[in-house]
Amino acid sequence: VGVDIGGSNLRLALADRHGTIIGRWRTSTNETSSPEQVLQQIAQGVHDLLRKASLPRTALSAIAAGVPGVTDAERGVVIVTSYLKGWSHVSLQQLLESAFHVPAAIDNDVRLAALGEHWMGAARGIDDFVFLAIGTGIGAGIFANGQLIRGHTFTAGEVGYMYLPGGPLEPPRHGEPGALEQALGGEGIRQQWVKTSNSDPQVSALCATDVFARAACGDHLARGVLDLSAQLLAYAVYNISAVLNSSLFVLGGSIGASLQLIEATEHRLDSYAVPARPNLVISNLGTDAQLVGALRLALTTAQVRAKS
Amino acid sequence: VGVDIGGSNLRLALADRHGTIIGRWRTSTNETSSPEQVLQQIAQGVHDLLRKASLPRTALSAIAAGVPGVTDAERGVVIVTSYLKGWSHVSLQQLLESAFHVPAAIDNDVRLAALGEHWMGAARGIDDFVFLAIGTGIGAGIFANGQLIRGHTFTAGEVGYMYLPGGPLEPPRHGEPGALEQALGGEGIRQQWVKTSNSDPQVSALCATDVFARAACGDHLARGVLDLSAQLLAYAVYNISAVLNSSLFVLGGSIGASLQLIEATEHRLDSYAVPARPNLVISNLGTDAQLVGALRLALTTAQVRAKS
Repeated sequence: VGVDIGGSNLRLALADRHGTIIGRWRTSTNETSSPEQVLQQIAQGVHDLLRKASLPRTALSAIAAGVPGVTDAERGVVIVTSYLKGWSHVSLQQLLESAFHVPAAIDNDVRLAALGEHWMGAARGIDDFVFLAIGTGIGAGIFANGQLIRGHTFTAGEVGYMYLPGGPLEPPRHGEPGALEQALGGEGIRQQWVKTSNSDPQVSALCATDVFARAACGDHLARGVLDLSAQLLAYAVYNISAVLNSSLFVLGGSIGASLQLIEATEHRLDSYAVPARPNLVISNLGTDAQLVGALRLALTTAQVRAKS
Repeated sequence: VGVDIGGSNLRLALADRHGTIIGRWRTSTNETSSPEQVLQQIAQGVHDLLRKASLPRTALSAIAAGVPGVTDAERGVVIVTSYLKGWSHVSLQQLLESAFHVPAAIDNDVRLAALGEHWMGAARGIDDFVFLAIGTGIGAGIFANGQLIRGHTFTAGEVGYMYLPGGPLEPPRHGEPGALEQALGGEGIRQQWVKTSNSDPQVSALCATDVFARAACGDHLARGVLDLSAQLLAYAVYNISAVLNSSLFVLGGSIGASLQLIEATEHRLDSYAVPARPNLVISNLGTDAQLVGALRLALTTAQVRAKS
């Protein structure tokens, strides 16, 4: 079973040993969901999934979960997350193993999305690539030399904190979005649009992807917001590429998957071919990327533990 | 033997199997030095080193060289370098093996400096760190998960191309310094100083480190140049850290080793503690870092080839 724990949704997928999904389950979470509550929901989901598939409990060989926060994948501990209040140093791997009596593993959700794209998505067989999620938040899952990069305190890929020309310059603060996230995250783009279109309350209520769609229809105010977003994304991708020289950037998240944004960004990147022009592609797994990555992690965990 | 091929100097070091340097040799190069000329110089250097150490030619077990350019370390090919004219797709590894009849290997010089710092320098035993060289040019050697990161076209670590707030915004051009390098490289800092102090020709002739020393003595014009450099370096280090979450940045190169610059940068980074404050330290191998890295690569190459 693969699990995707989000700030508003909990999703589960049951797959066979080849990774073919044979059942899905979902429910709601909110920012006050405690680890115990989420664990109980997962237990309910696993129960329902096995029953629907007419499988006994013993058919479950492993479980892995993606978490929207800083996660120590080695020790299986959720260090902190801004989406779920009170989750601090939660030994989630151990809780899952105690609940299901099978090997368990956890990791950051964006990192699992990268793993999913590497296994079955747009980055299949590519050993140096970046999965870049742009939605409410911004984060990256990084593969280099064919391995996930986590960093020494498990915050590698927190590219929403980058400082870029034209973006905000205030120093970063605990619990607040980073500089790039303030400008290019969903709320940042919405706020730019509110500022731009401050006359009409109906028009200002648009969300980021509405604004981009409006830009595509020729609205020049919306075009201005899209252009600024594309310029920031081009700088971000180019700077990450200067560090890693990744062969591919897979874009995910509601904003990352915007065709208008990727086209406008590609246009800018045409001028940034030295030392290497970054290649962009929209995720083909979409919101399944994290789940597929969680399934991959569950399968690897089952294999590794079976050997040891 | 470890070799450091530069645009103005060629340096060799002879070491025993523990990496203890038992002889050094150097000569001059210039931008018109051809691969054949450099190879002949290396041959002379190896000959002199062995003779001085009273060792027979058969005592040489391997040779490795660092190159100031884009280098395919797997195939042993120098793809391009801006410091040596006409070096394009040079099979240097093969040339070295033909000349010395021992296993040879090559890599980018900044990457070898990182390898040197990891083996015997400021990053000993640290598996996630960045060696950042700031001199005429700017480049990084990156360790993640205990491995060097090279990227898909061997340009990982070309951070001199990063776009940062307050830096130049023109798109990058072939053969020209990148945006960060234009501002924070030796020539960029010198030009800022010329602009700042345009009255007095004697004063404007200072080089970057002179300007920083002058700032330390209370000159407020020089202080302005130092402050701008420190702000750019702080943004660069912070952005790289947002990508990699490295536990350490080892600074090298004539400008990177400036105490005034590191102090002013550290001061700025105190406000950048989220998600992780980057730690800076000046290289303790200094200009030996590349040579030590080349020796490490030579020893590894000797061991690997002996096994295979």
